[in-house]
Amino acid sequence: MPEVRIAEVRRFMVDCLVAAGAPEHAAGAHADLLLHADVTGHFSHGLNRLEFYIRDIKSGATDATATPVILKEAAATAWVDGRDALGATVANFCMDLVIRKARHAGVGWVTAKGCCHFGMAGYWALKAEREGLIGLAFTNSSPIMVPTRSRERALGTNPIGMAAPAAPGDSLVVDMATTAVAMGKIEVQIHKGEDIPEGWALGPDGKVTTDAQVAFDTGCLLPLGGSEQTCGYKGYGLSAMVEVFTTALSGAKPTHEGRSWDLADKAAPADLGQCFVAIDPGHFAPGCAESVAACLAHWRELQPMDPSLPVLVPGDKERMNAEETRRRGTVSYARAQVDKCNRVAESLGVPSLQVAS
Amino acid sequence: MPEVRIAEVRRFMVDCLVAAGAPEHAAGAHADLLLHADVTGHFSHGLNRLEFYIRDIKSGATDATATPVILKEAAATAWVDGRDALGATVANFCMDLVIRKARHAGVGWVTAKGCCHFGMAGYWALKAEREGLIGLAFTNSSPIMVPTRSRERALGTNPIGMAAPAAPGDSLVVDMATTAVAMGKIEVQIHKGEDIPEGWALGPDGKVTTDAQVAFDTGCLLPLGGSEQTCGYKGYGLSAMVEVFTTALSGAKPTHEGRSWDLADKAAPADLGQCFVAIDPGHFAPGCAESVAACLAHWRELQPMDPSLPVLVPGDKERMNAEETRRRGTVSYARAQVDKCNRVAESLGVPSLQVAS
Ligand SMILES: NC(=O)c1ccc[n+]([C@@H]2O[C@H](COP(=O)([O-])OP(=O)(O)OC[C@H]3O[C@@H](n4cnc5c(N)ncnc54)[C@H](O)[C@@H]3O)[C@@H](O)[C@H]2O)c1
Ligand SMILES: NC(=O)c1ccc[n+]([C@@H]2O[C@H](COP(=O)([O-])OP(=O)(O)OC[C@H]3O[C@@H](n4cnc5c(N)ncnc54)[C@H](O)[C@@H]3O)[C@@H](O)[C@H]2O)c1
Repeated sequence: MPEVRIAEVRRFMVDCLVAAGAPEHAAGAHADLLLHADVTGHFSHGLNRLEFYIRDIKSGATDATATPVILKEAAATAWVDGRDALGATVANFCMDLVIRKARHAGVGWVTAKGCCHFGMAGYWALKAEREGLIGLAFTNSSPIMVPTRSRERALGTNPIGMAAPAAPGDSLVVDMATTAVAMGKIEVQIHKGEDIPEGWALGPDGKVTTDAQVAFDTGCLLPLGGSEQTCGYKGYGLSAMVEVFTTALSGAKPTHEGRSWDLADKAAPADLGQCFVAIDPGHFAPGCAESVAACLAHWRELQPMDPSLPVLVPGDKERMNAEETRRRGTVSYARAQVDKCNRVAESLGVPSLQVAS
Repeated sequence: MPEVRIAEVRRFMVDCLVAAGAPEHAAGAHADLLLHADVTGHFSHGLNRLEFYIRDIKSGATDATATPVILKEAAATAWVDGRDALGATVANFCMDLVIRKARHAGVGWVTAKGCCHFGMAGYWALKAEREGLIGLAFTNSSPIMVPTRSRERALGTNPIGMAAPAAPGDSLVVDMATTAVAMGKIEVQIHKGEDIPEGWALGPDGKVTTDAQVAFDTGCLLPLGGSEQTCGYKGYGLSAMVEVFTTALSGAKPTHEGRSWDLADKAAPADLGQCFVAIDPGHFAPGCAESVAACLAHWRELQPMDPSLPVLVPGDKERMNAEETRRRGTVSYARAQVDKCNRVAESLGVPSLQVAS
């Protein structure tokens, strides 16, 4: 697979976003978000998505020059209008706000309407973690989850991102869609020519399917937990909780009225809702980070079922991937991915992605 | 099955708790918590647990006369020492605090150490919901969950309770252990003589079991999602998140150092950690309750896979059970349950539970 130097990936992303109409600093912040996904191994949310963001800028669905505004504010909270700005523009604005509020009031809780796709929820939670705070980020998404007992889609993959600092230089990062899996994992099975396990998705007949292509074409993901018997209604419940935090509290469109995931209605603004939280452990019991660190150490040392698969803590996979990528200095992309990017670049008049090897 | 009038159940619970040493008002509040469980159909958390609370009072693990104290406070937050008071005493104290803080600061976030078992998490979230706020409650519990890839227990069923008001007189209540199921559901399968589905629990060999008795005796519950393939690490992640909110932020003992679920170490205080949150929708976008109501209406009307099983929203089961119980005016208990209660009552010198029919 072609290898691209990390700095070149960023250069390319920034150039494309700027060429599409984003100001330099907004493009840089959004590129950092996408780069984080590729560096941590979540390729579905990195360079792979660049075309999607550019298309939304070009169609007017995203206003890359916009800046968010505060509509209402209290000691610990704010209600924000994202004004269809780039995902990273709104999320940085809101995370800065909750971090400031958490320092003074102990906790900050901000909701925003008029949002575009903000990528990995955990990336935003980590912004608070780097400041020694606990961070949370939530977003709704396109309607693609079928609630328990339903044969119709109604909710999104509505992810929960949470990051907590652990001493020293370590952290807990829980960053997960509330569906069993994201669409990206089903695509991976298609590429491998393999079935999907029961409990991931429904077919067009409203029954569980194990055929990856059928699952992809139907676009009906099951909530975390799968069927009712294995408590899939809990994943549905979590998605409903995220729905309240992100849309009901922000005034954004409910997910079931939102843009479809295959983007039939391309030019309409997404009007997603997002929610950002920071908690300052300094306002609670002393030693929070040490206590988190002690849990992480305990969990990592648990006796594994299979000695070749050590117990991980949430965030370890991404941390290990990032260390490996930084050590190598390059990101590997499929040839088809590089070609697709270069077609986008050409249409924008941007120098193509330089492959290192 | 014997039927007991609702008021008689409460009378009996209060009498027993008072006889064990609880002040009248603390006993009343705790009885209301247990009664809510029986009325909503969560029998594992109602009268069934009375003996457990009484044993903890008698052993000194719970100090039924104690009142919690605030150790640290900011505009939106507080850190509380529960001083081993009764679960309802601490939870009422903390929920009153977060409700007050939410009204002023927009959100209130309180953690407490030195806590005893507080029953259904959702009951506490509903206290905020009745005030027109969104409520959240979390607690850690005994170590009974095996993290993904581990063959040892380390985390608890660490439940998440969330309630949001919907207009008019309706609500969303997400109230769930972060394990696939609670131990109570495995006991139900034993009583029915039925197997459990894969994805609920491990056997003594560290492998998934479908034998309910083996699962019960082993006491190793799988996280929500089940195995790694079906993303059980997400349930593990949620439990880890609850662990941070409840123990790391409060200074309570981490779950892996906590009392074992079979209570070998009876007289030690539980020192659980709990976390309570209230969010005032009035500080965010107008129309939050209406927006939640619109979602609930949409979800309930989704086309079901099986026409005889309509789509529910989280909280519907409990609401329907409560309506049915109140209509009937009585709660049904197994004969063995009534007998067990009466043995406890006799030892406390309390009039036995009067069966209505
Ligand atoms: N913006 C959006 O609309 C949107 C929607 C859905 C998902 N996403 C993002 O997509 C990304 C991927 O989501 P996902 O649900 O596929 O995540 P995932 O299943 O890859 O990982 C979920 C979490 O589990 C942890 N994890 C994985 N294996 C583990 C193990 N063996 N032990 C312990 N922890 C383990 C990970 O570290 C992570 O915290 C996330 O960043 C999410 O925020 C975004
Ligand atoms: N204090 C503690 O230590 C502790 C520990 C674990 C659990 N608990 C409590 O035990 C109780 C039971 O927990 P559980 O995990 O067994 O809950 P559960 O599986 O019975 O229900 C979980 C949630 O799913 C909802 N639900 C159920 N079926 C549904 C459907 N078909 N569609 C939509 N929603 C549906 C319920 O309304 C509820 O909100 C909870 O009150 C919990 O707080 C307490």
